[in-house]
Amino acid sequence: RINQERLWASLMEMAKIGATKKGGCNRLAGTDLDKQARDLFVSWCEEAGCDVYIDKIGNIFARRAGDDNHAPAVATGSHLDTQPTGGKFDGVFGVLAGVEVLRTLHENNIQTPTAMEFSVWTNEEGSRFQPAMQGSGVYAGRFDLATELNKTDANGIRLGDELKRIGYLGEEEIGSRPIGAFFEAHIEQGPILEDEHKAIGVVRLGQGIRWYNVEVNGRESHSGTTPMHLRQDAMVPASLIIAELEQIALRHENGLGTTGFMQVYPNSRNTIPGKVSFSAELRNPSSDTLLTMHQELISFCETLARDRNLDIKVDPFWYFAPVEFSASDDVKAATQLLGYSHMDIYSGAGHDACYMADLVPTGMIFIPCENGISHNEIEYSSPEQCAAGANVLLHSMLQASER
Amino acid sequence: RINQERLWASLMEMAKIGATKKGGCNRLAGTDLDKQARDLFVSWCEEAGCDVYIDKIGNIFARRAGDDNHAPAVATGSHLDTQPTGGKFDGVFGVLAGVEVLRTLHENNIQTPTAMEFSVWTNEEGSRFQPAMQGSGVYAGRFDLATELNKTDANGIRLGDELKRIGYLGEEEIGSRPIGAFFEAHIEQGPILEDEHKAIGVVRLGQGIRWYNVEVNGRESHSGTTPMHLRQDAMVPASLIIAELEQIALRHENGLGTTGFMQVYPNSRNTIPGKVSFSAELRNPSSDTLLTMHQELISFCETLARDRNLDIKVDPFWYFAPVEFSASDDVKAATQLLGYSHMDIYSGAGHDACYMADLVPTGMIFIPCENGISHNEIEYSSPEQCAAGANVLLHSMLQASER
Ligand SMILES: NC(=O)NCCC(=O)O
Ligand SMILES: NC(=O)NCCC(=O)O
Repeated sequence: RINQERLWASLMEMAKIGATKKGGCNRLAGTDLDKQARDLFVSWCEEAGCDVYIDKIGNIFARRAGDDNHAPAVATGSHLDTQPTGGKFDGVFGVLAGVEVLRTLHENNIQTPTAMEFSVWTNEEGSRFQPAMQGSGVYAGRFDLATELNKTDANGIRLGDELKRIGYLGEEEIGSRPIGAFFEAHIEQGPILEDEHKAIGVVRLGQGIRWYNVEVNGRESHSGTTPMHLRQDAMVPASLIIAELEQIALRHENGLGTTGFMQVYPNSRNTIPGKVSFSAELRNPSSDTLLTMHQELISFCETLARDRNLDIKVDPFWYFAPVEFSASDDVKAATQLLGYSHMDIYSGAGHDACYMADLVPTGMIFIPCENGISHNEIEYSSPEQCAAGANVLLHSMLQASER
Repeated sequence: RINQERLWASLMEMAKIGATKKGGCNRLAGTDLDKQARDLFVSWCEEAGCDVYIDKIGNIFARRAGDDNHAPAVATGSHLDTQPTGGKFDGVFGVLAGVEVLRTLHENNIQTPTAMEFSVWTNEEGSRFQPAMQGSGVYAGRFDLATELNKTDANGIRLGDELKRIGYLGEEEIGSRPIGAFFEAHIEQGPILEDEHKAIGVVRLGQGIRWYNVEVNGRESHSGTTPMHLRQDAMVPASLIIAELEQIALRHENGLGTTGFMQVYPNSRNTIPGKVSFSAELRNPSSDTLLTMHQELISFCETLARDRNLDIKVDPFWYFAPVEFSASDDVKAATQLLGYSHMDIYSGAGHDACYMADLVPTGMIFIPCENGISHNEIEYSSPEQCAAGANVLLHSMLQASER
């Protein structure tokens, strides 16, 4: 069993980096705070006897040798970057559950049959740079390395430059770690485990995600002198699309539709906006339903552009297909061994494990979080809930190593 | 008659300050560029023999003595600040038409019966600081000086600090200039004069304006894990209000409704927005109709807040009532004397003259602008059109001085 107090103390120590007034964290990918969090992780892993490798997209791998160092390692990991209004647990819990597994093995001098690797993936959140799960997506070969290093944030700063600046643009070739199985522990980020009074969610599926950049191009003109029928207002059509995203979601079982990001140009109250750029997101556990939702969005935008004689660009730059986790039964077996209450569940969020599932048998372990709230500074899971997840992670990894 | 080439050359010289790539100007109130524009105006007025006074809200008054320096002066003026996507003419034309009147009097050694004053008003645009016509509004006693100096831009910078920084926080008491009549020349900023082939618009009325800050408060949460029915999304209600502004405008004759400014928090694509702040604007030449539009907006927001169980704050922080110009007949007489084609018109935009009309007989002179486009970098009026407006200004001022 892992050490609950030590895990909690590590979570609280990590949470100081980028701590916000409301008790959360704002630690965007590639920032100085991201560097501090990474440095702390690396120092903890080195203290526990690991060698550390950084790859060309900034993913970190801390390796603990096993009996047979030619056999593929069993790996775990998650991310240390957060949303601007992030909590102390999203991502961090998975990384530190890994560190806790490592420390438990280390202090008990446990020799595992295979090596074990403890990882941190670059920019999982997809908040500052898009898409999400960028480091694991590159690792799994879903995204091109050079393209992703070239991605810029809203201020035009390149991811590659930021990684270099903070000292995490590494030398390891992409996809080169000798990994044979992957497990990720994470907070659920939704309300179901809490509602159902279950300690552990055995994650069967990661739902599908579609991300869009939408740009409405109109013409700037005076809001006080331009009659309604002569306007080329970019703002009203943007609003209609945002409202329609909600309608699309409501029309489909388990559908979700969201706009979280918007930029208005020139953003002056008496100038009719000439350009509005915003994000659109659709999610569904069924790829068929998600496709229908996608088609509805596209056709709504096309009709709107025609009706208003405006240029509306919809760039569907990221599609993440629903993914099944083939090592869920290992997670379930470990949960049962430990005697925790549990249920099968699907993940609403994308996770690094979703891309690792392309490469190796992968399993995900969810723990409940208070009121299902995440991407919010008040996000909370208790020390006991965290310990349960870390114990399941430990035993899932041990079982896989022994096989 | 004024000198058309000299007026045009001055317009083009002023347009270099804050020139944009698309041929316009970005010269927001209180910036270094605003200072440069003000300095140029002051140097031109001093060259033509004026004394210059700056008041406590940064308005500039250049005074040319007359025969009787105890009689109230005849004044003109407009503004040098622009929109972020502003043109070369909005405001600047009125200021430089004044400078051209001054130079014409100066080079011909014309002694006018009363003094004449040439003014530049602080922050007419209302883009960086709100409301619009801030300098003339303070001068006319509509706004409180201390309150307005304390107003901050979107980055929290105070107007008073900016005026001090650029050297335009003056000593003159507010409202203390000895002015007996006021005239302002301006581009129409709308399409009517061009459509009607008229050189001059005799402005009878400035339409009513209502400005609001709207804030929708929801709760940040994860866009991938928060079911639609558990969301407190601030973005969708904001969109519905923006779409409704258009509907309100369309329901009323001559109605206008616009959102030009928006800020989304935390502005991350997979976090449901917890707070969306935006501008709402309603305009109408009839104060009754504008009141009905206002009531429709308020009740729409109230219903929406109730239906969605969300906090929606609507702050109606500026109401500008429609204003009639009592010196329009002087403008008409000057136009007829000069033989220009003309028509009566109302102003869609607010102008400094609208607040000066509180204090003294005031007239406004419009000239056409290409395709009615303003608050856009491509805004254009021809040298001939500008000269016509400046000639009407000269003769309106001379007539008023002689009376
Ligand atoms: N776990 C998590 O919040 N991931 C961010 C990617 C997503 O939006 O699902
Ligand atoms: N002339 C002008 O564009 N003034 C700005 C104030 C308004 O929005 O009407």
